Amino acid sequence: MVLLQTLPAESLSPSLESKETARKFAALRSQLAKHKLDAYFVPSADEHLNEYLPEAKQRRQWISGFTGSAGDFLISTEQAWVFVDSRYYEQADMQVDANLQKVCKVGLEEHPTVEEVLEELGQNAAKQLQTFRLGIDPFTITVAQYRRFSERLSDGGVQIVPIIENLVDAVRSQSPWIESEPIPPFGDQPVITLPDSVTGESLAKKLERVREVMGKKKAAILPVTKLDQIAWLYNLRGRDVECNPVFISYAIVTTTDAYLFTNTSRIDDPVRQALAGQVQILDYEQYIPILRSLVAEQKNVLVAIAQTTYGTYLQLKDVKAKIVGAEHPIETFKAHKNAVEIAQMQQANLKASLAKTLTLKWIEEQISVGNTISERDVANKIEGLYKQQEGFYDLSFPTIAGTGANGSIVHYSNPNPDCKLLHGELLLLDSGSQFYGGTTDDTRAISIGKPTEEQCDRYTEVLKSHINCAMQKFPKGTTGSQIDGIARSSMWQSGLDFGHGTGHGVGVFLNVHEGPNGISKRVNQSLDLGTINSIEPGYYEPQWGGIRLENLYFVKEVATELDSPQKSNPNKTPWYEFESLTYIPFDKKLIDRSKLNPQQISWLESYYAAVVQKLSPLLTEEETIWLNQACSF
Amino acid sequence: MVLLQTLPAESLSPSLESKETARKFAALRSQLAKHKLDAYFVPSADEHLNEYLPEAKQRRQWISGFTGSAGDFLISTEQAWVFVDSRYYEQADMQVDANLQKVCKVGLEEHPTVEEVLEELGQNAAKQLQTFRLGIDPFTITVAQYRRFSERLSDGGVQIVPIIENLVDAVRSQSPWIESEPIPPFGDQPVITLPDSVTGESLAKKLERVREVMGKKKAAILPVTKLDQIAWLYNLRGRDVECNPVFISYAIVTTTDAYLFTNTSRIDDPVRQALAGQVQILDYEQYIPILRSLVAEQKNVLVAIAQTTYGTYLQLKDVKAKIVGAEHPIETFKAHKNAVEIAQMQQANLKASLAKTLTLKWIEEQISVGNTISERDVANKIEGLYKQQEGFYDLSFPTIAGTGANGSIVHYSNPNPDCKLLHGELLLLDSGSQFYGGTTDDTRAISIGKPTEEQCDRYTEVLKSHINCAMQKFPKGTTGSQIDGIARSSMWQSGLDFGHGTGHGVGVFLNVHEGPNGISKRVNQSLDLGTINSIEPGYYEPQWGGIRLENLYFVKEVATELDSPQKSNPNKTPWYEFESLTYIPFDKKLIDRSKLNPQQISWLESYYAAVVQKLSPLLTEEETIWLNQACSF
Repeated sequence: MVLLQTLPAESLSPSLESKETARKFAALRSQLAKHKLDAYFVPSADEHLNEYLPEAKQRRQWISGFTGSAGDFLISTEQAWVFVDSRYYEQADMQVDANLQKVCKVGLEEHPTVEEVLEELGQNAAKQLQTFRLGIDPFTITVAQYRRFSERLSDGGVQIVPIIENLVDAVRSQSPWIESEPIPPFGDQPVITLPDSVTGESLAKKLERVREVMGKKKAAILPVTKLDQIAWLYNLRGRDVECNPVFISYAIVTTTDAYLFTNTSRIDDPVRQALAGQVQILDYEQYIPILRSLVAEQKNVLVAIAQTTYGTYLQLKDVKAKIVGAEHPIETFKAHKNAVEIAQMQQANLKASLAKTLTLKWIEEQISVGNTISERDVANKIEGLYKQQEGFYDLSFPTIAGTGANGSIVHYSNPNPDCKLLHGELLLLDSGSQFYGGTTDDTRAISIGKPTEEQCDRYTEVLKSHINCAMQKFPKGTTGSQIDGIARSSMWQSGLDFGHGTGHGVGVFLNVHEGPNGISKRVNQSLDLGTINSIEPGYYEPQWGGIRLENLYFVKEVATELDSPQKSNPNKTPWYEFESLTYIPFDKKLIDRSKLNPQQISWLESYYAAVVQKLSPLLTEEETIWLNQACSF
Repeated sequence: MVLLQTLPAESLSPSLESKETARKFAALRSQLAKHKLDAYFVPSADEHLNEYLPEAKQRRQWISGFTGSAGDFLISTEQAWVFVDSRYYEQADMQVDANLQKVCKVGLEEHPTVEEVLEELGQNAAKQLQTFRLGIDPFTITVAQYRRFSERLSDGGVQIVPIIENLVDAVRSQSPWIESEPIPPFGDQPVITLPDSVTGESLAKKLERVREVMGKKKAAILPVTKLDQIAWLYNLRGRDVECNPVFISYAIVTTTDAYLFTNTSRIDDPVRQALAGQVQILDYEQYIPILRSLVAEQKNVLVAIAQTTYGTYLQLKDVKAKIVGAEHPIETFKAHKNAVEIAQMQQANLKASLAKTLTLKWIEEQISVGNTISERDVANKIEGLYKQQEGFYDLSFPTIAGTGANGSIVHYSNPNPDCKLLHGELLLLDSGSQFYGGTTDDTRAISIGKPTEEQCDRYTEVLKSHINCAMQKFPKGTTGSQIDGIARSSMWQSGLDFGHGTGHGVGVFLNVHEGPNGISKRVNQSLDLGTINSIEPGYYEPQWGGIRLENLYFVKEVATELDSPQKSNPNKTPWYEFESLTYIPFDKKLIDRSKLNPQQISWLESYYAAVVQKLSPLLTEEETIWLNQACSF
């Protein structure tokens, strides 16, 4: 799944919505006046830097009406802006009233970034010998983001003013919204423990490894902001955030102690027993006071500036902590999956592969007998099949089922019961689940009825891109950006491209998007042994439709014979390759075999054989016959 | 040319050399004591961040004896270290006495970086409740480097102490060295002006563009540290640094004025006239005083932290300048070549292509008549041919001619009269010139006599890598890292790789290595229209030999028909491709045609045809016959 979107708010009619937004803006501007601010910045993220947010923390969505999974909002005393990336160019135009807020399509010429807008505002203020005061909630941006802002803006007349009270929350807590749209409760869902047989590593061992890094860095205290890091470290899972099996909390690890700060009322005995003697469970509100008191004893605090909020950083600075900058050890450990985790992911993704394969079969049958089915029917079908699988826990993101032109909306995530699958169109089905133990994410595009030559051509191009990437061997140290180029090479030769990254890191029974690894031009991180990445090239044409072909892969060492020719490898560099976790047939109707080279054909034949081999034991005889036919390439 | 090496000092016998080094270390440690330092850091770079340095500034070489073009030196009261990258692993071992200084092969496991060594030293000091004082010459590191050091080390007990007097210079100025190895004069070579017909842009226009950027950034002052930026901006060239047509100087641009600080005694009337009314010429030593006095009037100074020395930065801070951080406008402008510059590069590289092609012919003939020739003979031959060309100015780097095993030493740059070209071996010839108007750099490997199957296999792999990269089309915004992956893809599939980047940016009648563009996993910079890059994949096997195939290419817009299939390109992204500046035959004896795909064969056939077409008009009839034969693939 390329990207996520939180569920859109109920649609009001545009004019009503505009009035409502205008009222919210007016209330927010009163807050600006109260704090003597010239502008206020509202990013997507919350106190835990979530991509998915609990509804209570969906501040940007609430204030601006733009519901995309990413995008920042800025309001000044006179204007407002929403900054979106290419995934949301169309959606933002549809969702916001341009009279109230300007849609800045970041990446397009003439469309400024938030820094550029602020720079200009600062310069205008400077001309009048005034300072431009920009308010932020320091708990909603990382230290790294703050520094980028500050380096860029502080010499340009912009003063960044951290305000502890979130001003959108302040507005949301006023009449009439406190009555009409009450802020929902959050952080109240159950938390479960995972045994070592699922995680592959005990809490004690994980703490030991974290403390080893802290020791090397001479850091006595490690604050943990991000929910998936806490869930991974403590071998716990929750349901506080839709699709992400995490729970609202903070953690602190010291050389001798560990703390979990969360809504303790929902923490039951099994969790308490699992953490007993190793982790103290305290109320969520105790995070800051305890952090401050710990610093009073030992000064050196490890801070990963891209993983820690500026709010936490300000608290640390306030008590004279000595900041030791470093990569976050948990982020690094979490990315390198152990053998048990990979086995869990194999099991989970086999379940998901089965569900999708049976969905594809069902669609084919419905169409062939002349039934009319909708995007919503398709989403219901696959979600139903996921839920039938043992260990189903949640979806890993809202199912994307887009038919025809809808397939070109990369982030399309509200399957429409009125959008029917029509002959001659493509359907794009991107979906995934959280199973107890593993996270899944896969995409297929299929042809409804008989495909056109153009559809076959584009599908084959995307498939070639997928295969070229999937079969690439590479030495240790290769970056996500290098692999991204390899994935695009053949499409580029035909003048084709896609606007998103080739792949993203995936958690194990955790978030479907996780760092630091991934495959995109922005990822300088190496693609290490044991990391899990999606490979999902695509092709999108507005009005025409979309194609995306996505499997998950883990990185493993390559068979040793490959090494032998490279005698110039005195340093014994290990070589890696991808192994698929996903086994779902590609739509052979859409493959133009004449455009594949022998290596690509060989990869595809092996893949089809593996699909049959892996899925057949789980199928009825009738289903097996169908699968064999679907895979007889 | 992958990389450069300054000419090695005369070789003494190892034991004599060790004694000499030990004496220098002792003298330097006296300086440490004088300044109460625990260590002193000596990077490769000088006050102008040169890669090539005038001999007077080759401090790291002088103190450590290691002569590589890159590598840092660190000395503590008890130990010393030299830090080298993979290009110099072997050379460093050969050149330094491990009893006196430890060779740290950065990139290998167990080999620390300079930051890691300092971190440990700092931690050891901290255990004894002491601060570790690290001395640096602030004019030999960039602001960016200083910040990296400082962020990494300042919390770990290391105090960075800027010392204005360079301590290596202090030692060098003492007896016995002041007598035995007097510091040579520098900055005394003539400076010439270039007309607009060569540069394609007047000084006035360049100043206007620079000031436009300064205006946008609200910066009133722009200091310029780097010699190639100054040469480019003022349309001047010099000969103060071997192989780089630059001259020792500083520059400052303000909104109304421009300054050149240099050894004025060698500036003649044509230069004075060319700059008259636009640039004030002042003595080199005036740079800091004038900079400080300008800041007294206007505070906002544009500083590109990767292009400016920390020494300059400290001076600015001392007079309370307001630092506006930004990309250096000159670095950006310089990278984007105009049509006249590209035409100049085409002419220059055609001359170089002719010289190399005739050298290859000459080698073939010498071998075929049974003459014995050495690496030095080959270097002399091609350098002679360069010098015969109209407009020859200098070499662009020391000629690399390595036969047999020597070809595997990537940086081999001292062609040996005792190393003869032997049947069955490969010769690697990497060379380039500065011609009036353009810079050249190209590499061919050729077979002496009859090649082995293994040589053909490896050569064909490198050629495929070169061709795949050279024929790649890509959309605007594609990074050097993505293209690097594409270049390596086919080699990686065979378990082959090379330890250097695929390509580097090249100046126009300027440095053979220039940023910010390039093709390597470290380059996140996009490969923009008008940039010039080498493409030079290789293969190296110790004891066996080396292959490198290098052309220079400029980036141009692709023929428009390519765009049509991408209807999903509503943003009208421009598409780019490479056009070669270099026209030299590849050694067809070494090409295994059966391993090339139809696209690669087609590219190669077109390339051979272009070589014949471009070079024939410059050849005698006999030479043309030979070339046709060499290109009849």
